[in-house]
Amino acid sequence: MATDRVTVVSADPFIIAVSISPKRYIHKLILRYKEFMVSVPTIEILKDVWLFGLRSGPDKLSEARVTLEKPVAVSVPLIKEAVANLECKVIGMHDYGDHTLFVREVVAFSYNDKVLPDDEPKPGSGFILYIAEDKFTMEESSAVKTR
Amino acid sequence: MATDRVTVVSADPFIIAVSISPKRYIHKLILRYKEFMVSVPTIEILKDVWLFGLRSGPDKLSEARVTLEKPVAVSVPLIKEAVANLECKVIGMHDYGDHTLFVREVVAFSYNDKVLPDDEPKPGSGFILYIAEDKFTMEESSAVKTR
Repeated sequence: MATDRVTVVSADPFIIAVSISPKRYIHKLILRYKEFMVSVPTIEILKDVWLFGLRSGPDKLSEARVTLEKPVAVSVPLIKEAVANLECKVIGMHDYGDHTLFVREVVAFSYNDKVLPDDEPKPGSGFILYIAEDKFTMEESSAVKTR
Repeated sequence: MATDRVTVVSADPFIIAVSISPKRYIHKLILRYKEFMVSVPTIEILKDVWLFGLRSGPDKLSEARVTLEKPVAVSVPLIKEAVANLECKVIGMHDYGDHTLFVREVVAFSYNDKVLPDDEPKPGSGFILYIAEDKFTMEESSAVKTR
């Protein structure tokens, strides 16, 4: 699935949270396997992000152009074209409103060091920002300093 | 305080989650008052965002240039120059790693309809994207469509 409902919770240990509706097919998979991959896409693979967000169920994988590869610590595949892949295990689940907030520990990760050199994201890499409906944008290529 | 560790959890009811370290002064305030304002800034008030992120305690308010105003449903002030203000009440707290994940229901909100016309954010408005250290960027002014 595709989502922007994800945030970092804790740096050490590295923990993130993602909100997912019980109506989503993936919700059942997470409850069963307790493992998860968070893949950070760029605008270069936007068509697949849209496909993964729009369509439900595993059939969409046959239409996707991205490459699935074996990860290090979990059994869910990573996406080779993503600029970062966070391999996660579920450590908490909390139902709020119409969604479940899944809390996960990142047990392994890998990233593209051209897009994330020196441990920080490089502006102009095409990180995807969701606007609404089928509209997206990306970040500007210049950084603004506060001083 | 300033943070980018915030995400939407549920649309109906409108619920968000924010991760905050117990080392932060605001952590004690939230535990005591169970109320919260989430104000969405733009690059125009970046200097105040940096001040709020860098310095601890209420003294920093005297140096800030933004205008505090009375909200509708909570007792915490809103920021007039922010493009959206979400008035929140805490409905859940979960400790994970070195942070507390606060879950809040948005009980009232207001926004700038030039920046968020027709219920969607307008690209080029200067939403702040955090890179690292004192570096920030914003979104591009053009939208990308998937089709």
